[in-house]
Amino acid sequence: MCYVRQHELYWLNGGIWMNHRKSNFPHAAALGEAIAYARGEKKVPLVIRNAQWLDVFSGQFRKGDLAIANGMIVGVGESYDAEEIMDAEGLFAVPGFIDSHVHVESSLMTPARFQEAALPSGTTTAIWDPHEIANVLGMDGIHWALDAVQDLLIDIHVMVPSCVPSTSPELEFESSGATLKASDIRSLAQHPRVLGLAELMNFPGLLHRDADIMQKISDYGSLRLDGHCPGLSGKDLNAYAVAGIHSCHESTSLAEAREKLSKGIHVLIREGSCAKDADALLPLLDAYSSASVGLCSDDRNPLDILEEGHISFIINKALESEKHPADIFRAASYATAGLYGLRDRGALAPGYLADICLIAAKGQSWSEGMQIKKVIKRGQLVNAAALQKTRSPLPKAGRKNLNLPAPALKDFAIPASGSEATVRIIEVIPQQILTREVHATMKVVQGQIQADPNRDILKISVLERHHQRGHRFTALVQGFGIQRGAIATSINHDSHNIIAVGSSDDLILAAIEDLIRIDGGIAVRSDKGEKAQLALPIAGLMTDSSPDTVAQTLRELKTLTRSIGCVLSEPFLQLSFLALPVIPKLKITDRGLIDVQAFCKVPVILKSL
Amino acid sequence: MCYVRQHELYWLNGGIWMNHRKSNFPHAAALGEAIAYARGEKKVPLVIRNAQWLDVFSGQFRKGDLAIANGMIVGVGESYDAEEIMDAEGLFAVPGFIDSHVHVESSLMTPARFQEAALPSGTTTAIWDPHEIANVLGMDGIHWALDAVQDLLIDIHVMVPSCVPSTSPELEFESSGATLKASDIRSLAQHPRVLGLAELMNFPGLLHRDADIMQKISDYGSLRLDGHCPGLSGKDLNAYAVAGIHSCHESTSLAEAREKLSKGIHVLIREGSCAKDADALLPLLDAYSSASVGLCSDDRNPLDILEEGHISFIINKALESEKHPADIFRAASYATAGLYGLRDRGALAPGYLADICLIAAKGQSWSEGMQIKKVIKRGQLVNAAALQKTRSPLPKAGRKNLNLPAPALKDFAIPASGSEATVRIIEVIPQQILTREVHATMKVVQGQIQADPNRDILKISVLERHHQRGHRFTALVQGFGIQRGAIATSINHDSHNIIAVGSSDDLILAAIEDLIRIDGGIAVRSDKGEKAQLALPIAGLMTDSSPDTVAQTLRELKTLTRSIGCVLSEPFLQLSFLALPVIPKLKITDRGLIDVQAFCKVPVILKSL
Repeated sequence: MCYVRQHELYWLNGGIWMNHRKSNFPHAAALGEAIAYARGEKKVPLVIRNAQWLDVFSGQFRKGDLAIANGMIVGVGESYDAEEIMDAEGLFAVPGFIDSHVHVESSLMTPARFQEAALPSGTTTAIWDPHEIANVLGMDGIHWALDAVQDLLIDIHVMVPSCVPSTSPELEFESSGATLKASDIRSLAQHPRVLGLAELMNFPGLLHRDADIMQKISDYGSLRLDGHCPGLSGKDLNAYAVAGIHSCHESTSLAEAREKLSKGIHVLIREGSCAKDADALLPLLDAYSSASVGLCSDDRNPLDILEEGHISFIINKALESEKHPADIFRAASYATAGLYGLRDRGALAPGYLADICLIAAKGQSWSEGMQIKKVIKRGQLVNAAALQKTRSPLPKAGRKNLNLPAPALKDFAIPASGSEATVRIIEVIPQQILTREVHATMKVVQGQIQADPNRDILKISVLERHHQRGHRFTALVQGFGIQRGAIATSINHDSHNIIAVGSSDDLILAAIEDLIRIDGGIAVRSDKGEKAQLALPIAGLMTDSSPDTVAQTLRELKTLTRSIGCVLSEPFLQLSFLALPVIPKLKITDRGLIDVQAFCKVPVILKSL
Repeated sequence: MCYVRQHELYWLNGGIWMNHRKSNFPHAAALGEAIAYARGEKKVPLVIRNAQWLDVFSGQFRKGDLAIANGMIVGVGESYDAEEIMDAEGLFAVPGFIDSHVHVESSLMTPARFQEAALPSGTTTAIWDPHEIANVLGMDGIHWALDAVQDLLIDIHVMVPSCVPSTSPELEFESSGATLKASDIRSLAQHPRVLGLAELMNFPGLLHRDADIMQKISDYGSLRLDGHCPGLSGKDLNAYAVAGIHSCHESTSLAEAREKLSKGIHVLIREGSCAKDADALLPLLDAYSSASVGLCSDDRNPLDILEEGHISFIINKALESEKHPADIFRAASYATAGLYGLRDRGALAPGYLADICLIAAKGQSWSEGMQIKKVIKRGQLVNAAALQKTRSPLPKAGRKNLNLPAPALKDFAIPASGSEATVRIIEVIPQQILTREVHATMKVVQGQIQADPNRDILKISVLERHHQRGHRFTALVQGFGIQRGAIATSINHDSHNIIAVGSSDDLILAAIEDLIRIDGGIAVRSDKGEKAQLALPIAGLMTDSSPDTVAQTLRELKTLTRSIGCVLSEPFLQLSFLALPVIPKLKITDRGLIDVQAFCKVPVILKSL
């Protein structure tokens, strides 16, 4: 019997696609067997005994067996005979965690490798916006994503990227690898793993009724429409909600989150590697709101997943802030499943998937956090053997990842007249993907502005890398602290061009040349010729190496980055987000410097003196 | 623009039926207009000002306008310019109430007339199991039900009757007007007003894997499967839940409800005219569970709806028992909408239907209950003119409602031998549809048991009335208290044969003959020849008369019923449920006396003495 896997297939019954159904039975025979197990007419294959399991409907921990057959919970609360008994020895059992919004690409790994890191930390389902690979490879990237999650133990559902590129191409704000119109993505709405349209970042386009966005919303109107609207409020937020946008993971203040929730925009509390909102937003979570709030990682690097956890990390923050376990665990499972129409999971009750975390409080009470003791996915214990059964297929070999005319020093020039100039500088905010705009007066030498590491004013460059277009732009940034080196990467939200930052033009060029040699990934270089590199052969974004290997390489990269003076704890992710022209305030792309609030290109030089 | 009504139509988009979608827009143009309203770019048609509106996501009452256009809420919390301003003068605004499970037939009125009673009390959506008319007219009855709700102001969605008759026909427990197999109802799963399969009363059939039930569950597995399992617990309840049954409205004790909820069977707290469970079950409701609990009326007569309210009556009971308003109103709206996948309603937020109740606390605090001040349905003020705009069509005239061989006195004989006999008696429990079995010793006179009104032991008869089959059965009942008269009705759950109770065989016969003359309805007759009658020309169940007319006639019927000695406050509903062989303990049908727990026919005479 393998009816649990089969419910993932397209089921056509009289014209209705049976996606995400609650009833897990394609055949009456499978249903009959489950009923027989539930009634105790025959021994169930697996029972978890002596656990205190969470009833997510009432918010109570309860005692009694959890009986499991064919990947599904068939009985709770009663005592069952079983082929195999797993003694939980008093541990707590909670539903497997659901990451309500993740870019798997940010783990730098294929979905199969992501699962190796995420599943042991309790994440049994993830909702993936494959937005990064879509920006590089277009529809081929989305189809690869859908194929790559097909046979994994973890369930990964897909939201179809809505904004590729993130801003309307007519604006010429950035050069992506692909442009996806409504007509391109329409047919994906029928794919059984697709839950809806991913974060609608181009909220100005929505507010101004961009025809293509209206069409996408119409096409996906019966599915879920995820939002992305940092700072949006008032009537514009009403307008965003009226279009059917049901969620946003971009709130950074409690007031912002409260307003969104009150307008029916479900708040997904995010704790990524770079964007860390849990501290600010956790006060939103209580018994009542725990039905309407989700948790998400958005962008989380493999080091953090391995060292701190994934959704489990947010849960621990919530426990440490004295949130009630029943509220936290409902948000992390049943609430999110409900928000996304995944009716077959999120609860420990008969008929639900046997996605279960066995956990213990770390200390005397929950307020010291929890430890994951065992993870069960579809009734299967998550261990090394189970995790390595399947691999994600690799995309077809084709063109190189980095396709650009050879860079040269002149690409990093910032021309200026006069002897001094007032310049616009991107100020990085540690652990935020928002930036500030600051101004400074700088010397003009030989008609150019130079980086000034002493004042932590560095050059930052973005170079188009998809179609040999040759677009490239250089501006100024503050906050990295780099004194003697450079970083270059092909991860560069959302268009994933090359972005580089460094203490001198020479070193920026050298780092980019290193990056070109490995055909994408991350390259760090010091003024002494030291190098560290992570090659990301899949679209310049991902590798099929193991989490441990990736984590070790990242540690080396971080060590070198610190040694060249960088003060950011997440230098690569923060660098990657500086090109995202839908997150305020000031961003850089291959086409220029973008004031995201004014939604226009602005010059680096404010005034020549 | 009338896109709000249009979202009810079948929308075929690339093979996906767009039922119950959140996004209310068939066309990008309509979406664009809503966005313009939401942004305040043009005056909205209607604003409700100075209300304190409930945010069902956070559980807070908030201030600010509710802006409405084209039947939908387009903005909340901000201040809008409007064509028309409705000053709420500080009233509270809550989402329109949803009756999660109702048999409209029990209102004795067509859906259009039901709306006249229910809508003004705040019920803006009802989920109808047209089980009664299906038992009489089969598929014709369900199709009529779907037609009859088509153009109303109230939204009535339909659950397809799963158990017609209520017990497997092979058991020969009862004779219904129709039998509906899986193959009969399969195609209805695609109807846009159909939300799923209605109360699966034949839970023994499910537990024993009756093939037809398995097929129905399979066919409707992607929709909602409503339950009906009074007293079911333990492993059998697990088995019921594993099949995907998601609700039950039959809990009568708190412990029963708690167990069901813990197993993922959402509890619908019922307060009908006869079955009154709110007092017992309201302790279940709190901030946490209010996301998983619904309210329902099940069977509520028009007198009670007019005099006490509908869902509003349960809400008042909850307020009086000091439940928190935010919890109650979420259960009555958003929670129920979620349980049934009605994503477009249940909240006061942009993009949701403008189904709004303006209410006031009756006293200084909520604990004295609330009063409905105004009801707005799809943006339209509910008043007499709005209510009477549409009528339900009447079924095609065809066969008579009552088709049976003429009854005779001999039909009411209970033969017995010896001089005395120990007999089995159905004991009616006031305000419960459960019964008890009691035993008594009675005299045998001329080979028969006679009614003994002095001991409140009366004859009760059920006569097949659909297909001239001639089945009829007489037994004994206690609890009515009738001393000098009889009641007969063609409402008789679920097979809706004729059921009659009275103080003598003569009077029972006379009441039945009256009933046949009006071709179905309710007939009461006293030993002095006094009569009161309510004709129900639609299937012997419903009339198209106005609620006031029906209520007045019911008052006359009740007055006469009291004058013949009846002590029950709901004599007609209680009588109607005595033939339902799926509710314990002892019931009577046209085929015999049924012990529902043993699930077999039992004789009236236990022992001849």
